[in-house]
Amino acid sequence: MRLATLRTGAQTTTAALAVGADAYLPLPARDAGALLRNPEWRSAARDAAAHASTSDVVHGATLAPLLPQAGKVICCGLNYGDHIQEMGRELPEYPTLFAKFADTLAGAADEIEVQGSERVDWEAELAVVVGATLTRADEAEAQAGIAGYTVANDVSMRDWQNRTLQWFQGKAFDATTPVGPVMATPDEVDGGDVEVRGYVNGELVQRGHTRTLVFGPARLLSYISQFTTLRPGDLVLTGTPGGVGMGMQPPRFLADGDIITTEIDGIGRLANRVSIRQPARHHQPVHSA
Amino acid sequence: MRLATLRTGAQTTTAALAVGADAYLPLPARDAGALLRNPEWRSAARDAAAHASTSDVVHGATLAPLLPQAGKVICCGLNYGDHIQEMGRELPEYPTLFAKFADTLAGAADEIEVQGSERVDWEAELAVVVGATLTRADEAEAQAGIAGYTVANDVSMRDWQNRTLQWFQGKAFDATTPVGPVMATPDEVDGGDVEVRGYVNGELVQRGHTRTLVFGPARLLSYISQFTTLRPGDLVLTGTPGGVGMGMQPPRFLADGDIITTEIDGIGRLANRVSIRQPARHHQPVHSA
Repeated sequence: MRLATLRTGAQTTTAALAVGADAYLPLPARDAGALLRNPEWRSAARDAAAHASTSDVVHGATLAPLLPQAGKVICCGLNYGDHIQEMGRELPEYPTLFAKFADTLAGAADEIEVQGSERVDWEAELAVVVGATLTRADEAEAQAGIAGYTVANDVSMRDWQNRTLQWFQGKAFDATTPVGPVMATPDEVDGGDVEVRGYVNGELVQRGHTRTLVFGPARLLSYISQFTTLRPGDLVLTGTPGGVGMGMQPPRFLADGDIITTEIDGIGRLANRVSIRQPARHHQPVHSA
Repeated sequence: MRLATLRTGAQTTTAALAVGADAYLPLPARDAGALLRNPEWRSAARDAAAHASTSDVVHGATLAPLLPQAGKVICCGLNYGDHIQEMGRELPEYPTLFAKFADTLAGAADEIEVQGSERVDWEAELAVVVGATLTRADEAEAQAGIAGYTVANDVSMRDWQNRTLQWFQGKAFDATTPVGPVMATPDEVDGGDVEVRGYVNGELVQRGHTRTLVFGPARLLSYISQFTTLRPGDLVLTGTPGGVGMGMQPPRFLADGDIITTEIDGIGRLANRVSIRQPARHHQPVHSA
């Protein structure tokens, strides 16, 4: 099963079942996250599909962020073992975690508009959609609590990220993390065994395989659930492989008009034009002195 | 005006006007955050008070977290200038920011139950409640967008906080950050000119004055609003003064049964018993190898 969230108007979205290339069947829920909060979501989606006619199918829909109201978006950094080892570092004992809010999310084809950063970078990632309430879950429970997998790009404003020791401000610009186009359920795709690829203007810049993750999807959800409850519709980003712009010699950042493409076989592809603007005012950030 | 959020049953809360010592008038909103999302909240609260009779006043109420559904909880670290300078460091150019989710919040008198940490520490703080939608606001707009001020304790699990470079996991344990007891509006208290005090079992351990904040309330909201929209009911914690346990020689952490008290004149006092438990299972955190 493949779920999406469609924009149906200026302010409203709805959950949908992807039933073909660019073909969606709207489901009776505000968005994919709201659908997942119904414990019977699988049968609800199947029932809706069984009773639908071809005239119900929507083509050419605009994709909203998959989980526009996600209660928690938790991201893992430094998680690709091959990249960590090629950098000569030791594998971490614990996952490096940071948080985003739902306002940071964007749709699979949305323009990513950034104001006030001159170092906009890409981070192609597999993301895990939580499908159950997980509190101090072991790995088997966490695995069973995975609703599905999706594609994300943790677009990062490196100048803001590196202003202080905490990355949050460089990772939390509104509407800059595309997520989608669909969530594919674990019977369709094994998130622990997929290749993640990132492109800038069609040039392959990142390629990593999730079997080299230090903390795979279930382990990551289990770890997080030791301190905070994960709930249906929450989103966990699993980290990015090597090949980000900041790591290049010389560093390379996105320019106004660049297209970033992020894809995972069996899930789908994000394609986002990046618009880089200087803010209309407050060009100079607030300084302390 | 002083607003609280009361627990009215196992699952429900309601906004309330504090009308005296331990006396509250319930208001027609689910919680203080929901009230603030009504642009006419000030007059709505005044009208409810004008039409209330003494029999409407509730005594002995249980306080919920002030903003149990806060969309964003953003915290600032390293923000007390006198403490930074006494440590021999330079004042920061930018605020160090990190995020919490609403699940992390607790009520003003709740027991703080921590599982799986042996280094539980206190951080008494002034918190700012957002009362308007702020996007790239200047300081005057940010000041006008402050709904009020409240008291928080950013209880921190230092072992988890220091496992990696990102503090999030040590700051995000469910129901460990008490917030309340009330939000006091700016006409009642000037958040930029109050003393913040923290006590452990009645012993004064922290005392700081918010006029020594490097980034005061309006400046902090203005800065944050350059990258993400702040909305009514969001919460910004302004940082903690010197005197945390981790900084003591030798370091001192909370023991099971300790009482932490956090107070700000003109706003109120949090008093939380700390319960430290080892988890029933998964005592050993997930390791990578």
